[in-house]
Amino acid sequence: MTDPLAARMRWWGWGVDGHDAPLPEAAATMLRAELGVSGARLAPPALERIDLPEPALSASARTRLVEAVGAQYVRDDRLTRITHAAGRSYPDLVRLRSGCGLAAADAIVFPADHDEVAAVLAVCAEECVAVIPFGGGTSVVGGVEPLRGPLGAALTLDLARLSGLTALDPRSQLATFAAGTTGPELERLLGAHGLTLGHAPQSFEFSTVGGWAATRSAGQASTGYGRIDELVVALRAATPSGELATLAVPASAAGPDLRELLLGSEGVLGVITEVTLRVRPRTAGQHFEAYSLPGFAAGSEALRELEQAGAAPDLARLSDEEETRISLALASRPGATRAMRAYVRARGQRAGCLTILGFDGDPAQVAPRRSRARSILRRHGAIALGRAPGAAWAKGRFHGAYVRDELMSRGVLVDTLETATTWTALEDLHRDVRAALRGALARRGTPAVVMCHVSHLYPTGASLYFTCLARQQAGAELEQWQAAKAAASDAITRAGATISHHHAVGTDHATWLAGEVGDVGLAALRAVKARVDPAGVMNPGKLLA
Amino acid sequence: MTDPLAARMRWWGWGVDGHDAPLPEAAATMLRAELGVSGARLAPPALERIDLPEPALSASARTRLVEAVGAQYVRDDRLTRITHAAGRSYPDLVRLRSGCGLAAADAIVFPADHDEVAAVLAVCAEECVAVIPFGGGTSVVGGVEPLRGPLGAALTLDLARLSGLTALDPRSQLATFAAGTTGPELERLLGAHGLTLGHAPQSFEFSTVGGWAATRSAGQASTGYGRIDELVVALRAATPSGELATLAVPASAAGPDLRELLLGSEGVLGVITEVTLRVRPRTAGQHFEAYSLPGFAAGSEALRELEQAGAAPDLARLSDEEETRISLALASRPGATRAMRAYVRARGQRAGCLTILGFDGDPAQVAPRRSRARSILRRHGAIALGRAPGAAWAKGRFHGAYVRDELMSRGVLVDTLETATTWTALEDLHRDVRAALRGALARRGTPAVVMCHVSHLYPTGASLYFTCLARQQAGAELEQWQAAKAAASDAITRAGATISHHHAVGTDHATWLAGEVGDVGLAALRAVKARVDPAGVMNPGKLLA
Repeated sequence: MTDPLAARMRWWGWGVDGHDAPLPEAAATMLRAELGVSGARLAPPALERIDLPEPALSASARTRLVEAVGAQYVRDDRLTRITHAAGRSYPDLVRLRSGCGLAAADAIVFPADHDEVAAVLAVCAEECVAVIPFGGGTSVVGGVEPLRGPLGAALTLDLARLSGLTALDPRSQLATFAAGTTGPELERLLGAHGLTLGHAPQSFEFSTVGGWAATRSAGQASTGYGRIDELVVALRAATPSGELATLAVPASAAGPDLRELLLGSEGVLGVITEVTLRVRPRTAGQHFEAYSLPGFAAGSEALRELEQAGAAPDLARLSDEEETRISLALASRPGATRAMRAYVRARGQRAGCLTILGFDGDPAQVAPRRSRARSILRRHGAIALGRAPGAAWAKGRFHGAYVRDELMSRGVLVDTLETATTWTALEDLHRDVRAALRGALARRGTPAVVMCHVSHLYPTGASLYFTCLARQQAGAELEQWQAAKAAASDAITRAGATISHHHAVGTDHATWLAGEVGDVGLAALRAVKARVDPAGVMNPGKLLA
Repeated sequence: MTDPLAARMRWWGWGVDGHDAPLPEAAATMLRAELGVSGARLAPPALERIDLPEPALSASARTRLVEAVGAQYVRDDRLTRITHAAGRSYPDLVRLRSGCGLAAADAIVFPADHDEVAAVLAVCAEECVAVIPFGGGTSVVGGVEPLRGPLGAALTLDLARLSGLTALDPRSQLATFAAGTTGPELERLLGAHGLTLGHAPQSFEFSTVGGWAATRSAGQASTGYGRIDELVVALRAATPSGELATLAVPASAAGPDLRELLLGSEGVLGVITEVTLRVRPRTAGQHFEAYSLPGFAAGSEALRELEQAGAAPDLARLSDEEETRISLALASRPGATRAMRAYVRARGQRAGCLTILGFDGDPAQVAPRRSRARSILRRHGAIALGRAPGAAWAKGRFHGAYVRDELMSRGVLVDTLETATTWTALEDLHRDVRAALRGALARRGTPAVVMCHVSHLYPTGASLYFTCLARQQAGAELEQWQAAKAAASDAITRAGATISHHHAVGTDHATWLAGEVGDVGLAALRAVKARVDPAGVMNPGKLLA
């Protein structure tokens, strides 16, 4: 059994050593040609370079924490502080690689259960120590940065020891998990009962069920299985003012839904300790297939029709022209890709958009669904590309975050951001966010490649997921990123779209939250926080900052 | 065009005069035999008997309200005060019929739009006047009772003039309505565009879209179309602290969901003025059919399997043995009913449970769904009863509330209450709530008939809807009702079920809310209220009382 307290990821990047794959030669060529990066590859940073302040926890706070959770579960060694000093956003990775500007916690505690979490919160509220809840540490919006606000000390509360299935009611398709359970562990435990949750965000290998709930995560197959908001039936949380728990009932009219107040609360109200989920029988197989659609607008219309007709696959993903071009350029089998492009052109599509569909189930279950989807897509001019491109996507579905490390090692700014809007507003939003990102980076002399895909379909709209690549501005990496981020966020807010579809708010989107929920909405959320966290110790600087 | 300010319902009961149907003779016989009621029929009460206090609104408040909405839209005549003095719960109807104990508002105002609503709230906050938002006035939990709490005056804010479709985006299947739009008007406006909402609670003829949202209503076909919480995409509300509006986006991870804070807020935070809904293409037809299932437990299992297999109809309703017995006894065609009972017994069911399924769509769409549902039901021992009983139910689907008036005229206590729980806990809850109601009423010497049905299916559970009949205790009608209500509510809370699945909290369930959401949950909601309604003028005595 592995040490539950050991870092789940390498300290300076995504995932674990050994997984990373070098970029194909075509990709390196493209980076040089389109972004003007040199091609030189930097070695990973050295742990010794990280500049950490001395732990500032008072002796009395430390003693009381040791009493609450046991001495071996209060840590302040250098490696543990560094592995909890940042999430995995682009600015997080820039800071980790440079060793400058990291906000390290003064201690990391590993409580065993809900009661120990509550005890830690009580100590922190009395001792005025900031508490940063930490699940997988995979936040890409600054959600786990150990900020202390006006407080003198900060503590990261790692939920690694709260792991496992705590209750199962197969008849009602309900399963309760401790909040620190990771994606693979959760699916392993459910799989033993023939069940699945079906929730697989790109962070799946490392992120936790408590983190999914606290950030309103959406899995890659949310079109079929629903977002985490739709899968969470009940929650239990520890707050500085006591326990906040909701009933595990299918629906209620007993006032505002407090479950929806904890979902997305990002640790600013308390710590989610237990999550009750709707689970389903595990299906026997998965089928992925690909199509080329004649443009992003036509492709969006096809996905809209699929979804509104109740014919959507469990997973649907439409790349725009630019993402299609880059994906094909970077594909690991250039011969096959060239042949595919030639085929699509011969069929009359000049700039096709790659579309991946995924269906869960055995072939007999999947066949009628595939056939219905195919006939709708064909009406929109789709060309079937068979299983290979879909299978390739599925094989690499958690790989994108590793590629980011490799790109950063080559001096590339690489960031992703996502939003959602109505079907009617989708094309304008796509155009405006692309223009904002490209404009902001061009103005800094680092022209960008901006790619986008539609995923996560709803009857009323869909999400847009942008990936932005540019040459890093050496010495001004964070300013460069901030300029692009602000431009994109302003464009999203102007369009009336949401500042985040599934990454949450954290530090990076907090500036734009008032634009989304309004002054009264923000005041209402702050009133809840002031009531349940009167000392203001819960995750300062996030969400409501 | 009818006067939008005229009362929608007769002042002393449900609906309009002329709709009521006399009880069949078999029903009168049954009431005498099983409940011991005399059979005498009381005439409707006389308007003159109602005892109303003089309007207590200050001259300055009245002047400012007239400035805000116009003199013709500030009313305090006797009929308008009485038609806004109560909802349509059993205790409301007892008070209206007796003329005693009614809490009448000092004035009724009819603002024209969001800005006028906001202006009225500003006046009331400054003048310390309680505001009771009023849609259709159909609350069955005391939600529109004009309580004033510690304030000197109370005003009912009738939303009748906020009616109509204010925006339509058919491509995104989104429609925005002013909050006071009633069910029939909403469907008429959508129907002109070939669209439907599909939300039909029993109050459909009179209730409003704002009321549905404020109380988390569930339509009879919520199994297929979803509850109002699932149909509302965005809301706009006026609060004493300003506007609170949410974005019309399909999903978001930008913090806690404020839409879910307004849904179920029952007017204690502000007044919902506009609702954006997910709508769908109108289907070409409806098909209802009936089955007899061999007992309530077997029937529940059949519905569970239908729902979890994704094979549920749009509407499903399983009566327990008692509700089946009473429904058949009261049916308008005794010959057909006797034949049906004989047929079911001949097929081996001693005490079958009547089950109604409803499917929306043209015959070709409906056929495969019906066939799949039928094969699952048959495995659970269902006997098909054909279309007639289903069609009869559908014909009378909004009629139950009228029957209540007739029963009360004959001296019958008649109340309904509803809850929801997991599939696993359903049978015990059914037994416990029945026992609580029967026990409480037997102890008062008025033995009860308690019926129940399952409706509103979810993968994790379902709702239970109880109807309770007993002889009224003359002179102690409210105490008698309170004893039964408290016993049932205690049983629901002990079972960990919700105190309301779709009727909301109002005054009647407020005592049990803390048991459901906990002290910290209640404190969080009160903190929001204190922030957005610092003067405490919004609907005092409801929800958080």
